[in-house]
Amino acid sequence: MSETSRRTVLTAAAVVAACPFAPAHAAAPPVHRQAPGFYRVRIGDHEVTAVHDGVWLRPIGADFVRNADYRDVQQALTAAFQPPDRLPVPFTPLAVNTGRRLVLIDTGTGGQFASFAPQSGTWAENLAASGMDPADIDAILISHCHPDHINGLKTKDNALTFPNAEIFVAAPEWDYWMDDANLSGASDTARPQFLNARRIFRDLADRVTRFSPGRELVPGITSIAAHGHTPGHTVFAVTSGNQSLLVLGDTSNNPYLFVRNPQWQAIIDIDGPLAAATRMALLDRAAADRMLVHGYHFPFPALGTIVRTANGYDLAPAMWRPQP
Amino acid sequence: MSETSRRTVLTAAAVVAACPFAPAHAAAPPVHRQAPGFYRVRIGDHEVTAVHDGVWLRPIGADFVRNADYRDVQQALTAAFQPPDRLPVPFTPLAVNTGRRLVLIDTGTGGQFASFAPQSGTWAENLAASGMDPADIDAILISHCHPDHINGLKTKDNALTFPNAEIFVAAPEWDYWMDDANLSGASDTARPQFLNARRIFRDLADRVTRFSPGRELVPGITSIAAHGHTPGHTVFAVTSGNQSLLVLGDTSNNPYLFVRNPQWQAIIDIDGPLAAATRMALLDRAAADRMLVHGYHFPFPALGTIVRTANGYDLAPAMWRPQP
Repeated sequence: MSETSRRTVLTAAAVVAACPFAPAHAAAPPVHRQAPGFYRVRIGDHEVTAVHDGVWLRPIGADFVRNADYRDVQQALTAAFQPPDRLPVPFTPLAVNTGRRLVLIDTGTGGQFASFAPQSGTWAENLAASGMDPADIDAILISHCHPDHINGLKTKDNALTFPNAEIFVAAPEWDYWMDDANLSGASDTARPQFLNARRIFRDLADRVTRFSPGRELVPGITSIAAHGHTPGHTVFAVTSGNQSLLVLGDTSNNPYLFVRNPQWQAIIDIDGPLAAATRMALLDRAAADRMLVHGYHFPFPALGTIVRTANGYDLAPAMWRPQP
Repeated sequence: MSETSRRTVLTAAAVVAACPFAPAHAAAPPVHRQAPGFYRVRIGDHEVTAVHDGVWLRPIGADFVRNADYRDVQQALTAAFQPPDRLPVPFTPLAVNTGRRLVLIDTGTGGQFASFAPQSGTWAENLAASGMDPADIDAILISHCHPDHINGLKTKDNALTFPNAEIFVAAPEWDYWMDDANLSGASDTARPQFLNARRIFRDLADRVTRFSPGRELVPGITSIAAHGHTPGHTVFAVTSGNQSLLVLGDTSNNPYLFVRNPQWQAIIDIDGPLAAATRMALLDRAAADRMLVHGYHFPFPALGTIVRTANGYDLAPAMWRPQP
C-alpha cells in the first residue's frame, strides 16, 4: 500500500475476485457458545475471581440522569459505541479466596431478572465453570440492598443459594431498608425494592452480621463507607502483601456515563449529590494511587484502573492475562 | 461518607477491627486456573472466534522505537499501567466460520516461543476449549511471515497442524521471504526469520495459494494490501450482511504504543515510514467508519474500535457480551 489512502483501502475492500473460489469444503458447524464468564487475578496471596451474571440492556430516557441534558447522555453513549437509548448494565460479583475464607462480594440477580433482562442470570453457570461451589462460600459482603446485588442469596424458588455463608450488611444500609416508616413512605418505584429486600432477608436475619463501615470484615478485606447511591452503600478494599484492589460496588454505574462524567446523578442514586461527591472522592483516590479497581457494572471482567481526564475520569480496562 | 475526603477514605481503609473475627472456616483451595482464552462475536452470518495464544512480555530498550525518545516510550507504557521496559505482546489468531468454510487468520507461535515467552503457546488448548478442531479448518490466511504468525502451521516437532487447510499468502510476502538474494543479504537478526519461513513452508508449498492483495479469498473475506511492517503485509475485511470486521494483523503492534502514537516506527517494521503511513491510513479509516477492528497484538480478545485523539488514536476495547 505504497500510495495508501482511504480511497485505495475502500476500493480494495470492495473488490470481488473474478476467479472462481477453491471448492467449498463443508465447514464445521458454528459453535454458538461464548467463553465462560469468569476471570481470575491474584492480589498478593488472595485469588480473586470475577464471575459474570450477564448484562441488562436497560432502556433509558431523559429522566435517567437527573442533572444532565439528555442529548449529552446520548452523545456519551454514542461515543462509547453503544446505542443512545439502551444502557448496557453488566453484573459482576467478585469471589475472593483469602486462603482462610472464600468470600463473595455481592451476589447477582439470582436469575430473577430474566423477564426484562434475558441476557442476565448466568452467574451460577459461570461460577461452576470457574471451579467453585456455592456451598464453599463462607462469607458474603453486600455493598447495598438493590435487587441485582442481593437477589442471588436466594434462587427463583426462594431457596438458599449459600448454605454455609455468614452475610455482612452495613448497619445503615440494613436499617434503611428494614425501617417500616421508609417502606410506608416509599414511592411507587421504590416500594418493590423495599419489599424485595424483606423477601430476600426474611429467613436470613440470623445469618446477617450488621457492621459499621470502616471495619475489617474478614482478614484482608476492609469495608469503606461510600454512602449516597444508597444510604448505607459500602465499598471494600481487598489487600494482601503490598497489593490491593478497590471494590467500588455501585460507586459508578456504567463507566461510559458516570466515570467519564462523575458529577452526573443517576435516577437510581438515592441521594444524588452525595453519590456524586462519594464517586469523585473514590475515583480521585483510585487515580492518584493508580489502584486496581472493580466496578460491579463495569464491562466484564469489571477490572481496571482509573485515569484522570480533562472533564473527569476514564476507565482503563485491565489487560487480560493468561495466568491468574 | 457525608464528609468525604481522601483522608477519610484512607483512614477507613486502614482500620483494623478490634473485635475478634468470626471463626475461620476452611476455605476451599484456590483454583489457580484462568478462564479459557477464547471469545466469540457474530459478524452478520459469520461466527468469529478470537483464540488466544498467550503473551510475550518482550524486553525492550532504547532501539525499539526508531523515531521516538526512549523516555517517551517508557512514559507511554507507564501511562498504560505497564512496566516501562517490558512490552506485553499478546498473540490472538482469529477463526471465521462463514457457514461454508472455517477460516483461520494467522496461526500463532505453535508453542515454539516457550523458551523466551513462557506464557505463550496456549492456542491449541484454547481452540479445543472453544469447541473447534484444527482438522476442521479448511483455509488459512497469513497476514505476513513473521514467526508468531506462521509457526502454528507446524508443531514443535515439525508435524502439520492443519491437515485439511489451503494456505493463502500474498505474493509479495511470499516472494520476499523466499528470495535467495534477500536471505543472503539479511542481517544477523533477520536471517533466522528467513530460515524460519523456509522451515515452516518447506513441505507446504503445494498447499499455498499466492494471491494479489485486493482479492476476495473466500466468500466474505477480502484481502487488503497493507505493506510496510513487512513487504507483503496484508490485512483482511470480514463482511456479512451490513456488518464488517477489519482484521489489522500487525498494522499496529501493542496499541498503547502504536495506536496512541501511530507515527512511531518499531524496529520490527521492515519499512518504518511505509508501515507508519499504512497504519495511519487504516486507523483513520477505522475511526471514520467506526469499524470493529481486530489487532493481532491488541489486548485479548483483541477486538475494539478506534477513536481519534488529539495526538493520534486510541483503542476502545469491545465490551464483553455473554452471547456471541
